[in-house]
Amino acid sequence: CKAHKVAILPGDGIGPEIMDQALRVLTTAGKAEGAEFEFTRALVGGAAIDATGNPLPKETLDICKASDSVLLAAIGGYKWDTLPAEQRPERGLLGLRAGLNAFANLRPAIVPPQLADSSPLKREIVEGVDILIVRELVGGIYFGQPRGFGTNDKGERIGFNTDVYSEPEVERIARVAFEAAQKRQKRLCSVEKSNVLEVSQLWKEVVIRVAKDYPDVELSHMYIDNAAMQLLRNPKFFDVVVTGNIFGDILSDEASMLAGSLGMLPSASISGDGPGIFEPVHGSAPDIAGQDIANPLAMVLSAAMMCRYDLKLPKVADRLETAVNSALDQGWRTKDLWKEGTNLVKCSEMGDILVKLV
Amino acid sequence: CKAHKVAILPGDGIGPEIMDQALRVLTTAGKAEGAEFEFTRALVGGAAIDATGNPLPKETLDICKASDSVLLAAIGGYKWDTLPAEQRPERGLLGLRAGLNAFANLRPAIVPPQLADSSPLKREIVEGVDILIVRELVGGIYFGQPRGFGTNDKGERIGFNTDVYSEPEVERIARVAFEAAQKRQKRLCSVEKSNVLEVSQLWKEVVIRVAKDYPDVELSHMYIDNAAMQLLRNPKFFDVVVTGNIFGDILSDEASMLAGSLGMLPSASISGDGPGIFEPVHGSAPDIAGQDIANPLAMVLSAAMMCRYDLKLPKVADRLETAVNSALDQGWRTKDLWKEGTNLVKCSEMGDILVKLV
Ligand SMILES: CC(C)[C@H](C(=O)O)[C@@H](O)C(=O)O
Ligand SMILES: CC(C)[C@H](C(=O)O)[C@@H](O)C(=O)O
Repeated sequence: CKAHKVAILPGDGIGPEIMDQALRVLTTAGKAEGAEFEFTRALVGGAAIDATGNPLPKETLDICKASDSVLLAAIGGYKWDTLPAEQRPERGLLGLRAGLNAFANLRPAIVPPQLADSSPLKREIVEGVDILIVRELVGGIYFGQPRGFGTNDKGERIGFNTDVYSEPEVERIARVAFEAAQKRQKRLCSVEKSNVLEVSQLWKEVVIRVAKDYPDVELSHMYIDNAAMQLLRNPKFFDVVVTGNIFGDILSDEASMLAGSLGMLPSASISGDGPGIFEPVHGSAPDIAGQDIANPLAMVLSAAMMCRYDLKLPKVADRLETAVNSALDQGWRTKDLWKEGTNLVKCSEMGDILVKLV
Repeated sequence: CKAHKVAILPGDGIGPEIMDQALRVLTTAGKAEGAEFEFTRALVGGAAIDATGNPLPKETLDICKASDSVLLAAIGGYKWDTLPAEQRPERGLLGLRAGLNAFANLRPAIVPPQLADSSPLKREIVEGVDILIVRELVGGIYFGQPRGFGTNDKGERIGFNTDVYSEPEVERIARVAFEAAQKRQKRLCSVEKSNVLEVSQLWKEVVIRVAKDYPDVELSHMYIDNAAMQLLRNPKFFDVVVTGNIFGDILSDEASMLAGSLGMLPSASISGDGPGIFEPVHGSAPDIAGQDIANPLAMVLSAAMMCRYDLKLPKVADRLETAVNSALDQGWRTKDLWKEGTNLVKCSEMGDILVKLV
């Protein structure tokens, strides 16, 4: 058996700590299923800026492209916040997404029953919520041209961006979403603002056309403002949500709060052909970095998504997800999730527990 | 004393019913303070499409421009949902905003203590929340040029919009927000996506510059995705929020759910010089139209905002707000807010109650 080549991008803040634990657990789970990994570390974000001046050095992108998959922890931190926007850690992330053409960002918002009480929402509203947000990740206003600064016809300085989608861009993300819905509750909600924006009208039109190929999936349409509301009012309405880059950014962060803590949420950014990027939804949390108190579970669950979507190792994925679930069942909690009656553990201790359970 | 000229736009669905009640209450409150109103009715939205084929007939805009203020109930409905986007009721609303240059949309998100339990969020999170969202309303991606459909360099069909702000546009909305903050808790949070968008970088830059004129206001900055999260995690962090058109659309709808029901939330869209537009945040609810069960409170509170901001009748505004508060205290509830232990009333009965209390 050939080793699965994985590019490892620990990034900044708590990134390296949670990555260390995730790799231990992943390696153990892989061994149990006869799967081997070859990890190649590379720099991205602030760590890369410090070492090379560039948030995404060419070498890093090359390593990623030559891998079967990319595991990323988290990037950014106060330290680089004063740099001009185009030199900031986030640009490394955007460059990586574009460079790998990782167009489909899958963000599950699941509320584990053991944690339903940590949600700011009432238990009866969030219990049983299981939403998959499919966000288009390499188009829309994040990458649209023209963009920049200029002067309008009154001679005033302006800043501007272009929100744009082409039919093939919408079609490919719609297909990912319909296919995901087929494997779930078979309900897809397309979110846009077609009562105001032409880019959304094109989006809606293409989604309706693609829907003909998935007659078993029930399609609905919702304006983004209403979706932001319904996510709180009746989150169980949603099964799979498909939306553009900026709306997906907002909606998936909002949805992540249903679960109460970001510490549990993984994400996958998959490309049609090459390696995908797998990373926790949470950030680099520089305020708690280096203290061994971060929550490694979202990182472990990201590794599970990688095994499922990119490496085709569903059994390893199952092992990782079951181990996380058991650790929660047994009452182990890192600081972010700790409550009276549960057992507080450090980041590395959670790693120890998972290594035993996996 | 001269009568205050108010353009009355009942619109569609429940619009006419709630408008009728609000006008009774407003007239009574005005009388008590020696203020008189001259109401001129005009058509907008679906009602205007049916009568004239145009969601904003020129006559309507002229009536509004010739008034001191505009009171609008709600527009839209299933009936017009299949029309092409440019002929839909929403266009009437957008045209009205632009036509009156109503650039500052003020949307309070207040959780009345009597209703804290109707929120999908836990009582301890929402109790005492009092946020004012200041949304730029006549610029950004809603109105930016160029926009439309076209072909990209690969020959694929595209839809596109431009998100653009000029320095003066940001400056004037920032000033409205800083001034509002000065009258409240003196905290302003500017929401944008400056880690990705140039239009947001300009926004942030101008807000920082304007802040120098308001040294007593504490300014913070937040990315829109984080704001969508923090609004659930810790809504009490926010006092005044200032943001662009599309982010404000999303955030204010999300914030409105903190209160549990849209039936309570008014909004003001003010212009520097001419009349402003005052309307409930909720929609036209065609499914319950004509049954006399709609909640008229947001409409009454919108009339209160009109008295406060446009007509400079703070005492009338106080009377309206106090009456609404007393009606809730006395346990009167329309169907949307009814709970065991409160008294169910119809829309017109709520009007009767308010007329007595005002
Ligand atoms: C860091 C930032 C550029 C990024 C985004 O906006 O996509 C982040 O918010 C995310 O959602 O992954
Ligand atoms: C009806 C629609 C055009 C409008 C908007 O997007 O501004 C509405 O959602 C609002 O917030 O008033």
